[in-house]
Amino acid sequence: MEKIANKKNGIDVDQLLGTINAVKSDPEVADFRFKAKTEWLEGGHCRTTFLPFYGAKEEDSSRTNPIIMEGDEPPILLGENRGANAVEAVLHALGSCLSVGFIYNAAARNIEVESLSFDLQGDLDLHAFLGLSEKSRPGYEKIRVKYNVKANAPKKEIEELCAYVQKTSPVLDMLRNPMKVDVEMA
Amino acid sequence: MEKIANKKNGIDVDQLLGTINAVKSDPEVADFRFKAKTEWLEGGHCRTTFLPFYGAKEEDSSRTNPIIMEGDEPPILLGENRGANAVEAVLHALGSCLSVGFIYNAAARNIEVESLSFDLQGDLDLHAFLGLSEKSRPGYEKIRVKYNVKANAPKKEIEELCAYVQKTSPVLDMLRNPMKVDVEMA
Repeated sequence: MEKIANKKNGIDVDQLLGTINAVKSDPEVADFRFKAKTEWLEGGHCRTTFLPFYGAKEEDSSRTNPIIMEGDEPPILLGENRGANAVEAVLHALGSCLSVGFIYNAAARNIEVESLSFDLQGDLDLHAFLGLSEKSRPGYEKIRVKYNVKANAPKKEIEELCAYVQKTSPVLDMLRNPMKVDVEMA
Repeated sequence: MEKIANKKNGIDVDQLLGTINAVKSDPEVADFRFKAKTEWLEGGHCRTTFLPFYGAKEEDSSRTNPIIMEGDEPPILLGENRGANAVEAVLHALGSCLSVGFIYNAAARNIEVESLSFDLQGDLDLHAFLGLSEKSRPGYEKIRVKYNVKANAPKKEIEELCAYVQKTSPVLDMLRNPMKVDVEMA
């Protein structure tokens, strides 16, 4: 008999449990290295190409079409809107990470999600970027995220799920806590 | 006589200096609020739409076509490669921010940039995301950035520029230093 995939929220739950067991039996399976190249094009415009990443003990070869992202500024910040700007891309990274965290963990908990979205806002004071103040920070003062979810679980379970997602979210961790970033000339 | 724009690296230097002076004479001009909505589509796939931002004392109306970003995971992480994943988007956000920082500040310093690119790598241990360890962090252990630049300035000036860019980069600040992120149900 053909095996029917055990899917929940579009996630193959058996594959998810298989990944967890693979990492339990060989911790090196969990070591990933992601790689990207950002090239400046003109003015505020740049393009990032994602290179094959390393993970599960080998270099990934699944991406036959290269994945790219474009960055630019709006005219008021001297660009031409050829893409979202860098701090907007941070909002996308966070929303995308919370989306995956909610959906994968909901699948593992047998919660069926009908719809899920995140409204994200970040407040930024340009003084530091423009070199006009050392008092304000260059990045967002704060990010506010509000999520809307429809799922077959009581509010309490959704809130527990959200607390767990926040604790384990890679992007939320990088924003809330300090991280080492080395920048050097090649 | 028609005014010729004073462009450097594709940046209108007079507009850049005008922005700096506008902020000096009215600090509120520097208050920006960026907004995005991330919607879950299926499995690991989501889409972020950037909403009109507030800045320079008004809501921006320059984006006649909506700007979007797609997120997904590769098959080994249970997705279908319909976009870069969330932690890859962080590399793009950082590369894009450093690109703008280099180019704008080079223009202000009268440095002409011929080419500029950033190679970015982030090391991630999946244990925390999978709920298998409280010892490793969910985010990157560390990001390494190497930049390649060709410009009409000596190496020392480029390194000074790079130090200044790092000090004033919004995304680098958000990654290196803690930031408050509130997540709540709408």
